[in-house]
Amino acid sequence: MRSTDNRRIVLASRPKGAPTPENFRFETVATPALGEGEVLVRNQFLSLDPYMRGRMSDAKSYAQPIAIDAVMGAGTVGRVVASKDKNFAEGDAVLAFGGWQDYAVVEAKDLAKLPAGLDHPSYALSILGMPGFTAWHGLLKIGEPKPNETVVVAAASGPVGSIVGQIAKLKGARVIGIAGGPDKCRTVVEDFGFDACLDRKAADFAEQLKKAVPDGIDVYFENVGGQVFDAVLPLLNVHARVPVCGLIASYNATSLPDGPDRLPLLAGTLLRQRIRMQGFIISDHYGDEFADFQRDMSSWVAAGKVKIIEDVVEGLKNAPDAFIGLLEGQNFGKLVVKIAD
Amino acid sequence: MRSTDNRRIVLASRPKGAPTPENFRFETVATPALGEGEVLVRNQFLSLDPYMRGRMSDAKSYAQPIAIDAVMGAGTVGRVVASKDKNFAEGDAVLAFGGWQDYAVVEAKDLAKLPAGLDHPSYALSILGMPGFTAWHGLLKIGEPKPNETVVVAAASGPVGSIVGQIAKLKGARVIGIAGGPDKCRTVVEDFGFDACLDRKAADFAEQLKKAVPDGIDVYFENVGGQVFDAVLPLLNVHARVPVCGLIASYNATSLPDGPDRLPLLAGTLLRQRIRMQGFIISDHYGDEFADFQRDMSSWVAAGKVKIIEDVVEGLKNAPDAFIGLLEGQNFGKLVVKIAD
Repeated sequence: MRSTDNRRIVLASRPKGAPTPENFRFETVATPALGEGEVLVRNQFLSLDPYMRGRMSDAKSYAQPIAIDAVMGAGTVGRVVASKDKNFAEGDAVLAFGGWQDYAVVEAKDLAKLPAGLDHPSYALSILGMPGFTAWHGLLKIGEPKPNETVVVAAASGPVGSIVGQIAKLKGARVIGIAGGPDKCRTVVEDFGFDACLDRKAADFAEQLKKAVPDGIDVYFENVGGQVFDAVLPLLNVHARVPVCGLIASYNATSLPDGPDRLPLLAGTLLRQRIRMQGFIISDHYGDEFADFQRDMSSWVAAGKVKIIEDVVEGLKNAPDAFIGLLEGQNFGKLVVKIAD
Repeated sequence: MRSTDNRRIVLASRPKGAPTPENFRFETVATPALGEGEVLVRNQFLSLDPYMRGRMSDAKSYAQPIAIDAVMGAGTVGRVVASKDKNFAEGDAVLAFGGWQDYAVVEAKDLAKLPAGLDHPSYALSILGMPGFTAWHGLLKIGEPKPNETVVVAAASGPVGSIVGQIAKLKGARVIGIAGGPDKCRTVVEDFGFDACLDRKAADFAEQLKKAVPDGIDVYFENVGGQVFDAVLPLLNVHARVPVCGLIASYNATSLPDGPDRLPLLAGTLLRQRIRMQGFIISDHYGDEFADFQRDMSSWVAAGKVKIIEDVVEGLKNAPDAFIGLLEGQNFGKLVVKIAD
């Protein structure tokens, strides 16, 4: 590989339902020349997250779809290798939206400098970055858990869910996780300190959930939808709060489920139980709240009060399979791809 | 009728679907004797409101169901005719939950004194009472309209909806009403000052609504559900707020509509558009907010900025038919039954 070669993964076609390897194309192109105010970044880690599934589609969503033949987008941690901007110099550690590729040309205004010599630079993609901020905002600004309330967290072993539960414990709540399979449930309780965790794949999952929340559910952090939400809905207490962060169960769906139409059931439950259900997208909140998040979370991480487990996949070419597995729940912890040392 | 006779309407049977006259029974019983701390009230006006449909059922709801053979509940304005409590004397004007009957025995703690000599004592059941407070709380505390935003109000000719729209105008919003039929729409625009009003019964209602909100919908005050909500949902803007006050379209429903199941569609829209959808029941908020509401609303009414149209039905025995008509949208303004002068 020549030093000007850039290996990258582009969107070859839009998935119908679950993405397949054919939706991605691995290619090598020349690294573009730098313009004024631009910086060339060598990507070291890239973050794989469920929201990327939405950007592969051209349905209406909160973000522009990725164009066919364009590089797959992703948050990245990397090192500056060349700079035509006075604020960045070769060797700087940076956070960028650098995509699924070796090198990214990024406008300086879209780069954030990271402290030099970090023990875990990839944490900027997880506990100290977007997933951590998502958990912090959704739980504290919408969920608003109070001491002794019951908080239920979907996708509890994932990066967002695991942090949601740990913050809820810090706030004095009783915290029940929901995860896919006994191994994930074990780590939710043993590593992340939830009070209990239920396997959503169990045949009697809905019954188990009902027993696990004898006082009902005050906050449900929604990351999943589908049958998990169906089990949660009848257990929501008066004045419950439901931050809607993700709906991974439906991301690959190509049509609505069969009837009856339960839209009136959901609306009626919101009314009868005086529930607040509120969707959010974390990119709306960086300007107002990211500094508060960083202050809270870095002190919690330093004190060992909140932690993350990373699932590190080695090698750019393995990103598509890792992403496909993520949508199926096969990852174990925050999924990052290590591209370079 | 002897002076101790009490004419009343009780719940004879629970409705299946829409209530019928057979669900009610008119009867005359003796007025009970007063105990210590109790007050005998002669009801003059009783309020008919959609929420009463829920109390006729024994399905889980936010209020206890009315027992079979018990008197139908209702907010009432009346006059004290006898008192065994030191705070109330014969002749006092009072607000009570006195029910569908001539006389109510009420504990003094459940009575509120009204000023003597009110021009419109029945306003305590509408613009200065529960429906007005419902509109004020739902719009200002959940809807939070900003100047130049677009507010859409369902059941816009009704007591809650008409007040919601008038307050939204005071706050500088553009206000579109939805009502049943051209006569109601005319009064929504001409009497209540909405910018426009659409007939939900029109064949091309959804198209009309889309054209009426070129900038989308920022606040939707939900009173109806059903096809009105279906037309609103795709028009909700990013960061829209949906106070859910009522769902009259489904109150008489005995089963869910046919599929597909649009619950995931609603949840997905809340997420993608970052919408807050929040149910509320006004009885939760009297302690905290009623004084603020009274201060705002009495000044607006005095200044002629907010008004109400009353639909006064004469005679207790006509209450069941009036209530059945209310659920079909046949009333025109705030429905009250005048029982006595």
